[in-house]
Amino acid sequence: MTDSTAAAETRQDRFERGIRVLTEIDGEVGQKVIDSLADVSPELGHQVVAWAFGDMYRRPGLAPRDRQLVTLGMLTALGGCEPQLEVHVNASLNVGLTPEEIVEALLHSAVYCGMPRALNATAVAKKVFAERDLLPVKTRRGTSS
Amino acid sequence: MTDSTAAAETRQDRFERGIRVLTEIDGEVGQKVIDSLADVSPELGHQVVAWAFGDMYRRPGLAPRDRQLVTLGMLTALGGCEPQLEVHVNASLNVGLTPEEIVEALLHSAVYCGMPRALNATAVAKKVFAERDLLPVKTRRGTSS
Amino acid sequence: MTDSTAAAETRQDRFERGIRVLTEIDGEVGQKVIDSLADVSPELGHQVVAWAFGDMYRRPGLAPRDRQLVTLGMLTALGGCEPQLEVHVNASLNVGLTPEEIVEALLHSAVYCGMPRALNATAVAKKVFAERDLLPVKTRRGTSS
Amino acid sequence: MTDSTAAAETRQDRFERGIRVLTEIDGEVGQKVIDSLADVSPELGHQVVAWAFGDMYRRPGLAPRDRQLVTLGMLTALGGCEPQLEVHVNASLNVGLTPEEIVEALLHSAVYCGMPRALNATAVAKKVFAERDLLPVKTRRGTSS
Amino acid sequence: MTDSTAAAETRQDRFERGIRVLTEIDGEVGQKVIDSLADVSPELGHQVVAWAFGDMYRRPGLAPRDRQLVTLGMLTALGGCEPQLEVHVNASLNVGLTPEEIVEALLHSAVYCGMPRALNATAVAKKVFAERDLLPVKTRRGTSS
Amino acid sequence: MTDSTAAAETRQDRFERGIRVLTEIDGEVGQKVIDSLADVSPELGHQVVAWAFGDMYRRPGLAPRDRQLVTLGMLTALGGCEPQLEVHVNASLNVGLTPEEIVEALLHSAVYCGMPRALNATAVAKKVFAERDLLPVKTRRGTSS
Repeated sequence: MTDSTAAAETRQDRFERGIRVLTEIDGEVGQKVIDSLADVSPELGHQVVAWAFGDMYRRPGLAPRDRQLVTLGMLTALGGCEPQLEVHVNASLNVGLTPEEIVEALLHSAVYCGMPRALNATAVAKKVFAERDLLPVKTRRGTSS
Repeated sequence: MTDSTAAAETRQDRFERGIRVLTEIDGEVGQKVIDSLADVSPELGHQVVAWAFGDMYRRPGLAPRDRQLVTLGMLTALGGCEPQLEVHVNASLNVGLTPEEIVEALLHSAVYCGMPRALNATAVAKKVFAERDLLPVKTRRGTSS
Repeated sequence: MTDSTAAAETRQDRFERGIRVLTEIDGEVGQKVIDSLADVSPELGHQVVAWAFGDMYRRPGLAPRDRQLVTLGMLTALGGCEPQLEVHVNASLNVGLTPEEIVEALLHSAVYCGMPRALNATAVAKKVFAERDLLPVKTRRGTSS
Repeated sequence: MTDSTAAAETRQDRFERGIRVLTEIDGEVGQKVIDSLADVSPELGHQVVAWAFGDMYRRPGLAPRDRQLVTLGMLTALGGCEPQLEVHVNASLNVGLTPEEIVEALLHSAVYCGMPRALNATAVAKKVFAERDLLPVKTRRGTSS
Repeated sequence: MTDSTAAAETRQDRFERGIRVLTEIDGEVGQKVIDSLADVSPELGHQVVAWAFGDMYRRPGLAPRDRQLVTLGMLTALGGCEPQLEVHVNASLNVGLTPEEIVEALLHSAVYCGMPRALNATAVAKKVFAERDLLPVKTRRGTSS
Repeated sequence: MTDSTAAAETRQDRFERGIRVLTEIDGEVGQKVIDSLADVSPELGHQVVAWAFGDMYRRPGLAPRDRQLVTLGMLTALGGCEPQLEVHVNASLNVGLTPEEIVEALLHSAVYCGMPRALNATAVAKKVFAERDLLPVKTRRGTSS
């Protein structure tokens, strides 16, 4: 195995690597975020791509669907991150989480973040599911065994 | 299949069901939290057990390890939840997450919550790993492929 | 007195009890929240009704108006909970808090949460008061004795 | 009635007025906070006294106990405010809230802020109650009618 | 030098002093916030003017542009404060920060608050810059020396 | 001027660059944070150094003291970041902010984050000032002109 980490990379190399990961996970939505930054903070766009996706997301050690579960938890807990949550409900579907699992993760968040955060996050999920024609979601009853 | 949700349950039934789930996931640490509430807010202890664990945690639709990934994300993002994070780093190990996966989830949190939350959560993980003799954790290099 | 807590209840019993409390406190607005969850997360709707209202809200030990004061404080402090704050400014009026008391509680929040949270919460209150024809609110001068 | 708000006040007048309110509500604990600021930020101490207590707390329109209910909700929701919560659990007792009401308010917070915030706040209340010899607190069962 | 702090001031004096500072820093936008409070919480409007601007903002010891840097950091970190951030991106320009410095401060926030808060704040800045015809912003490349 | 951003860099190059910036700004305290991560999450240590300091901190466009003002605001607003605030009060002194300016920035935070966050942050500053023998801090009176 060649350890690519020992290799020298230009800023552009890191960006290109990141774009590939971003496209894979977030699809077109991710690209739109980067485009919207072009005239105000291209460097923020660069860092989202080169660092967040190029360096962090592509690391082994945690499967893409697992990263999205952590991410859904964080964005729900932070609050006020509805635009990012929309991107990541889409990303969660893209990497293989089912609508039921996403809904269950957001239900679970009620225990740790309280009902308002769980309700707001679920409203975002509903919007994304509607756009992707995934409603209604079938969730199982709470105490069935 | 008998749908247990149709069955009538007493308050005590729900509590007992919850204690079984709590013990399975959190081990002794969970019981200690409940015990510490006995003289100040036994009802909060009851709700943690009967509702959070008895109703919510035991739901199908999301595997126990997946619930812990969401939970690690939320507790890291909330901040100021070090005691609960300690319980849930333990719980994460109990349900099969590896130290490497936990550390990777907390590293990932830097992207969404910033460095301070990631650092504080990682310090809690280190404490738990030390107690369970799991240090050093081997994390892979960032850009190896 | 018969202690109803010893009695066995079905999931449906708990839901029905919760709906009565929800309707009493939140009126139609609460029902709308539950309805909006029907196709995406009916279980979250169930938990809001059966647990939050059926188990928690109806507990003795804190008067309904006192619960709303605590709730206004929490929703203001959390931030990003404008939809829930709208429900609970309505609820606060329904259980007997006056517009003046609500406005005073939100003014008080400036001390603990800072001006932005106080301003955002007050904007929500203004919207609700306008809909219920309760403007202008008469607040007394700060230092009159 | 003479409207004192029309009267001119010096900075010192406002401070003295505030100290009276602070002492009434927070007792000695409040004074200790002010003292601890003397060598680092006496102006912050002045503003806590003259503005927070002198201007805001003494306003009519919300009873002292009601202010504490809002405050308990805010400090619980903010997280990481254990020192302030300790002052205000004491203050809550000073202005007439019972241990049962305080515990019930913190239990209620689980619905809006999630279990970790409710647990952390209840641990602070337990500490204060222990110091004032108020343990065990008797909370009523959740579903008794 | 006459120490004005020893002088007695009426409530109206403090308000008028604050309005001058508010207008200087926030321009018309600040006045609009105060106006919107007139029928719901004139006292909150008074406190924003008399206390936040009249007492706090005008203090020496930190230059107006430095106050805005701290304020941009706080509003970004709090989240859910888009209306206030809009006021303060305007204020930052009014007191001499350049668009590049503002964008750089928000980029810096990614390190401490994570990408979602940085992205949301940058979107607000973009809106303000567009209104003031300041796009595109030229930010320098990340690693040029 | 050679634009170093076009040059290829190894992972090690970026780390070494970051360490120089970290040492310059945070001094020994920063190195201690990195050391404490060695056995649990060396990759988090790497990212703090190579990304946060190597890529972000060293960017032109915002002076080091200005970055610290933004950082003080963010860490105060986030809450629960006392360890990081301690590092950055030290860093603020290292890059030329005076104790008076730091204290004034934290006083200013009361307007946006409320009194508890301002008090907690000021307590951290007091600890750092005491260690560096900088107490008492002389702050000017609030309304002197």
